[in-house]
Amino acid sequence: MRRHKVLLIIADGLGDRQVKALGNRTPLEAADKPNIRSLLRSSLVGLMNPISPGVVPGSDTSHLAIFGLDPRKYYSGRGSFEALGSGVELAEGDVSFRGNFATVDSDLRVVDRRAGRNIEEAEDLVRELNSKIGEINGVKVRFYKGTEHRVSVVISGEGLSDKVSDTDPHEVGLKVKESKPLEESQEAARTADLLNKLTRRIYEVLSSSEANKLRVQRNKPPANIVLLRGAAKYKELPKLRDYTGLNAAAVSATPLIKGICKAIGMEVITPKGATGGIDTNYDAKANAVIDFLKSDKYDLVFLHIKATDAASHDGKAEEKVRAIEKIDYVIGRILDNYSSELVIAFTGDHATPVELKEHAGDPVPFFLYVPENIIPDGVSDFNEREARKGTIRISGLDVMNILLNYSNRATKYGA
Amino acid sequence: MRRHKVLLIIADGLGDRQVKALGNRTPLEAADKPNIRSLLRSSLVGLMNPISPGVVPGSDTSHLAIFGLDPRKYYSGRGSFEALGSGVELAEGDVSFRGNFATVDSDLRVVDRRAGRNIEEAEDLVRELNSKIGEINGVKVRFYKGTEHRVSVVISGEGLSDKVSDTDPHEVGLKVKESKPLEESQEAARTADLLNKLTRRIYEVLSSSEANKLRVQRNKPPANIVLLRGAAKYKELPKLRDYTGLNAAAVSATPLIKGICKAIGMEVITPKGATGGIDTNYDAKANAVIDFLKSDKYDLVFLHIKATDAASHDGKAEEKVRAIEKIDYVIGRILDNYSSELVIAFTGDHATPVELKEHAGDPVPFFLYVPENIIPDGVSDFNEREARKGTIRISGLDVMNILLNYSNRATKYGA
Repeated sequence: MRRHKVLLIIADGLGDRQVKALGNRTPLEAADKPNIRSLLRSSLVGLMNPISPGVVPGSDTSHLAIFGLDPRKYYSGRGSFEALGSGVELAEGDVSFRGNFATVDSDLRVVDRRAGRNIEEAEDLVRELNSKIGEINGVKVRFYKGTEHRVSVVISGEGLSDKVSDTDPHEVGLKVKESKPLEESQEAARTADLLNKLTRRIYEVLSSSEANKLRVQRNKPPANIVLLRGAAKYKELPKLRDYTGLNAAAVSATPLIKGICKAIGMEVITPKGATGGIDTNYDAKANAVIDFLKSDKYDLVFLHIKATDAASHDGKAEEKVRAIEKIDYVIGRILDNYSSELVIAFTGDHATPVELKEHAGDPVPFFLYVPENIIPDGVSDFNEREARKGTIRISGLDVMNILLNYSNRATKYGA
Repeated sequence: MRRHKVLLIIADGLGDRQVKALGNRTPLEAADKPNIRSLLRSSLVGLMNPISPGVVPGSDTSHLAIFGLDPRKYYSGRGSFEALGSGVELAEGDVSFRGNFATVDSDLRVVDRRAGRNIEEAEDLVRELNSKIGEINGVKVRFYKGTEHRVSVVISGEGLSDKVSDTDPHEVGLKVKESKPLEESQEAARTADLLNKLTRRIYEVLSSSEANKLRVQRNKPPANIVLLRGAAKYKELPKLRDYTGLNAAAVSATPLIKGICKAIGMEVITPKGATGGIDTNYDAKANAVIDFLKSDKYDLVFLHIKATDAASHDGKAEEKVRAIEKIDYVIGRILDNYSSELVIAFTGDHATPVELKEHAGDPVPFFLYVPENIIPDGVSDFNEREARKGTIRISGLDVMNILLNYSNRATKYGA
């Protein structure tokens, strides 16, 4: 039996309940999905509990589970994933922080939490910080430019902790906070002390920076401090290739998801124009998927679409319907442009009912298209109601095993 | 989305198999249940394995699981729960015993294991024991009056063990037994020694008691010993409020169940006339539930009905049918008198098939009424046969998560 490539599509927050504005249909029921419907002729269909029945998943815990890693064992917060997804390089034990360029007075009292927001000089400022602050107390310090006023900070060394409080006071008019240890360990005390020294050093470097002098001359607030929050210690995760044998590539525009994919060793790409919103460039995403599928390097291609979840959080039922129809369009593009046989799974990482505007612990519809010789479930459409008639009843942790099995890539457990 | 209150109803031993005397229907199939049937219009329905498929649950292990505590981790015997449910106060490490007032001769040979059974002087005798035996070997000893000839005994102190044998010989004509350690620990040896001293001390106090002298004058057997059995060491359980955020109240007449509810921090009430039998006062139970639901203090109200299990153990199919119809009546009373929207779950803690007269490991029917926007399972009746057509396939440990999810009270796991 030939091995197939696998395409896994996760629409964030896909699952839903009956929506009054849609005539008591769910967005999946209301959406026109000709390409998805045509795949059902050779599909298994059903419901997936991303974590376990009733548990309300975050996108991070559910993606970990779907990628085969039990979050109860491997999850240690979103922080490191977001850093990785924003382009930060992390190694085991590194502690990362989300940072803001901000404006403080000479008492270190916050005048503007974002230093005017759009900081043209950010790249120069980050370069200056990196060249002048190589280390503090023997601990390596790195700065990474983010979007607008954002900057990530990573400290690397032995015996660091993420159990430390923020230096960001989260309010204008307050002084930059002393970081304090949040547990009674030597590591936490040492890290908090280091952060406080680092904060003073950042202020020295930025206060005397040429870029800031120019900003002041141009009547812009100086970006003379970096406020730190959300400490996260990076724990290396097992690599997908090692525990499944699959070489995988991901197409996503969402830093949290990109970070998880990177953490398990996937190749990650964000195509031009992919935004994570309803206005994302679906053609660019489809093209990126097609390129990965055509490449000899990858067995599994993962496509993440954020627009469904974004519409749900905004309570916009029609927008969620349109996002689903766009996904159907993307699937059509892929089927038209990749001619080899392919196993395709489509599901959500959790439900985000549009009337609830929050994640929910409902099971999520799941289908698995297998190109040959399975007994199809014979379900006529793909949605919350029809999925109940199919045979699939799985949890997130089962997904990788099912993909391996039906793509003829699984390794026998036992003899 | 609004948070709803939750009503959880467990009919003990509800699940059943085809019963010949009911024309090969189950008691749930034979029972007329108009109120339950009306709730199915907006319900998810299915099957629950209280522990895991095929495992025959006790009422204690299954209730623990349904309340979200894995019995494989938290269960350490029924003894402490029964003591708590009978009004005994327990703290971590206390060892409780079930006791009988009994009659022994001067050789401590048992003449009557229940000292004539109905002991009018029990309250006086217990008071005398508590005033004259405050402690033994520096270990605090307390006596609690139970029903008829029953008395609970609690010893409190460091380093006690429940791995000790009974002093109750369980047979007339035998001598009161020496308690022996059941494992080779210092704690067990120390506790057995203490029990033997305690037994002699009880005999001394009761032999010289005025109440017993009066009993002998009236030709009643003296209650001159307390036979001890069923040592149980109390281990504090996590509190429901801490691990779910729910403030909960329970309505139950069964000491074992009341004890579990108390152990996880629920408010527990046994309404007047509630007996745990088929003759229990259903109106009083309904009223207690309604009062709890109307109180601002509680998010979850738990109603336990024992009559279904009692009828099953007696092999009385018609009585089980009547008990189920009474539960339907109670649900109707509640719906008529509590007008706010409410999430309602109804299930059993295990099956007790009336033809088997014992607990069984079959899955138990489960339904969950959700007042708004779910896709109902469209099941026409609630029983073992119809429940298979619904989507719910859960284990007991999932129940709390599902209740939290559909009452909009869950906390997200992850980001």
